[in-house]
Amino acid sequence: MANPSLLILPGDGIGPEVMEEVKRVIAWFGDKRSLAFDVSEDLVGGAAYDAHGTPLHDDTMARALQADAVLLGAVGGPKYDDLDFSVKPERGLLRLRKEMDLFSNLRPAQCFDALADFSSLKKDLVAGLDIMIVRELTSGVYFGEPRGIFEEGNERVGINTQRYTESEIDRVARSAFELARRRSNKVCSMEKANVMESGILWREVVQKVHDEDYPDVELSHMYADNGAMQLVRAPKQFDVILTDNLFGDILSDCAAMLTGSLGMLPSASLGAPAANGRPKALYEPVHGSAPDITGQAKANPIACILSFAMALRYSFDQGDEAARLEAAIETVLANGARTADLMGEEGGTPISTTEMGDEILKAL
Amino acid sequence: MANPSLLILPGDGIGPEVMEEVKRVIAWFGDKRSLAFDVSEDLVGGAAYDAHGTPLHDDTMARALQADAVLLGAVGGPKYDDLDFSVKPERGLLRLRKEMDLFSNLRPAQCFDALADFSSLKKDLVAGLDIMIVRELTSGVYFGEPRGIFEEGNERVGINTQRYTESEIDRVARSAFELARRRSNKVCSMEKANVMESGILWREVVQKVHDEDYPDVELSHMYADNGAMQLVRAPKQFDVILTDNLFGDILSDCAAMLTGSLGMLPSASLGAPAANGRPKALYEPVHGSAPDITGQAKANPIACILSFAMALRYSFDQGDEAARLEAAIETVLANGARTADLMGEEGGTPISTTEMGDEILKAL
Ligand SMILES: CC(C)[C@H](C(=O)O)[C@@H](O)C(=O)O
Ligand SMILES: CC(C)[C@H](C(=O)O)[C@@H](O)C(=O)O
Repeated sequence: MANPSLLILPGDGIGPEVMEEVKRVIAWFGDKRSLAFDVSEDLVGGAAYDAHGTPLHDDTMARALQADAVLLGAVGGPKYDDLDFSVKPERGLLRLRKEMDLFSNLRPAQCFDALADFSSLKKDLVAGLDIMIVRELTSGVYFGEPRGIFEEGNERVGINTQRYTESEIDRVARSAFELARRRSNKVCSMEKANVMESGILWREVVQKVHDEDYPDVELSHMYADNGAMQLVRAPKQFDVILTDNLFGDILSDCAAMLTGSLGMLPSASLGAPAANGRPKALYEPVHGSAPDITGQAKANPIACILSFAMALRYSFDQGDEAARLEAAIETVLANGARTADLMGEEGGTPISTTEMGDEILKAL
Repeated sequence: MANPSLLILPGDGIGPEVMEEVKRVIAWFGDKRSLAFDVSEDLVGGAAYDAHGTPLHDDTMARALQADAVLLGAVGGPKYDDLDFSVKPERGLLRLRKEMDLFSNLRPAQCFDALADFSSLKKDLVAGLDIMIVRELTSGVYFGEPRGIFEEGNERVGINTQRYTESEIDRVARSAFELARRRSNKVCSMEKANVMESGILWREVVQKVHDEDYPDVELSHMYADNGAMQLVRAPKQFDVILTDNLFGDILSDCAAMLTGSLGMLPSASLGAPAANGRPKALYEPVHGSAPDITGQAKANPIACILSFAMALRYSFDQGDEAARLEAAIETVLANGARTADLMGEEGGTPISTTEMGDEILKAL
């Protein structure tokens, strides 16, 4: 049988730097655990724009649709800030999400024991924190039409459309309930049903999916503004949080920052299972392209390596191997290895991106 | 000359309880500082629905438009959760905002020294925190058309429209820059210009207003998701935050919770200055109707009393009297007066809503 295929899109900024370490980890699993992948690489974001004048070449899109899983580094940077909206680096990522139909974006907000002190929050509020945010990723105001800047009378108006169909809500709700069953069996769904009709439909469909097919899961509903408050006040009250594309963008970043482990957090974006049972999937770190530290060997590769661990778990059914990789990372952290972003007030000497990769390979 | 008029809308839940204390404070200013108001009272939210079958009677709307300022307690409660969208308590508040054209919502996120320990955040990150969030309040996805739940093929779709005109952005940007000039002269504007055209127009207009009329104010732009992160990471980097209706809803709640002073935070919603120089204005606490503690004399009246202080400052040009009231509250807190919401881990006996009112009157 052919090896499963992995398409690597390092992207911009620190993307290529952290991806180098991921490639070494992938090679290790091929060598040592007989988990070989057919790895290929391509451009996305600003890097693709520089080469092709578009943030995602059609050929790359086609390869992503063929691949068993896509690993992405990061996109964007100040160099591209003044580009036209239609060719901004972000459009490449958004096109991947949309055309691969990756409707379920899993964003763990997890606090690593060794790093609990880094949180802005008091330690007891975040130690052991383990939330999974399920964000709808292919619809809502990110993709709704009409959209654009139009003339109206003698001025311009900027318009975007928040839009959710029942089936879009239904499928992402299912993925949240499925996940909850494998965790602490609790889902909190967030919207603004008190001011938005799309939120009313969201709440209604989530409740219906629950009542019909997941009555065993504990379901609650919360307004998204209160959700932001509760995340700050007492994040451990949550297990799985289910929300839409735009609220998910903001709430997951807020939750990620709470953990103090921002440079450590991976994400998975999943579609519906294909004929072979495997979902279309894209894995990427939560952090961005970090232009301020690009090229300085300072970037923490852990979020991107943990994204590969998520790939092992969700795309390749290798939960044990994923756990092996995660455990190696815990060990490395417990031993005190720290990239610059993980340096606390005590000081000390940070290690480089490659050195962190070395440590992880050693621990494996 | 006639006394300025104040319309009081206590609303639901703890609204009426905290408003009782505000009324005593208003009376004190009439007696002791010769600042007499013509105070009248009316219903809003669930209370109005119970009486009239609508969360805001047309007569009340007319009185609000006539009043020099409106003071509102809170709206909503579980009793009204199943009401039709069009008569939910929130619709009363939203109608007031819209018909009074209160486009500029000022939400201070301030950490009271005596309460810095209550924050979920580490004390040094929030002690002395003083942010002002300026949220656009009469447009965006809260009011944009088309909206509703529609049939499409054989399913339903929920639609809301995010919509901003240049002039809507222009006027709220001006109010943020004006405020910044009286503070630390810094504005950070937040949107999602990387994914939403309405955000592109927002950024462009804010920049233009700045360049043309407020070049002395320091202006930066940030994506709203990063804004949520930065609020959690290092809130003191901000002075004035300018954002739209929906992002403002979430980010201001997040910021409010950071301070640890949620039961303490007031807000002002201002329109354009009328012929007499006074803006249409509505003042209300940031906290909600708190059904869980309603009727138990536990509510903290300070946020609502501080909302009256904002009225003194922004509607009646009585900055000194506002400062007097704020100082009295600082004193009371420094002396250790605490309602139940302000009880820390050390314990102690909380005082009631009325007792807190007593203390504040004594300190005045
Ligand atoms: C880069 C950007 C388009 C993206 C988003 O808004 O979804 C990012 O913020 C994210 O959360 O993945
Ligand atoms: C009560 C609700 C309609 C309101 C809003 O969403 O604006 C509230 O959350 C607020 O922030 O004032």
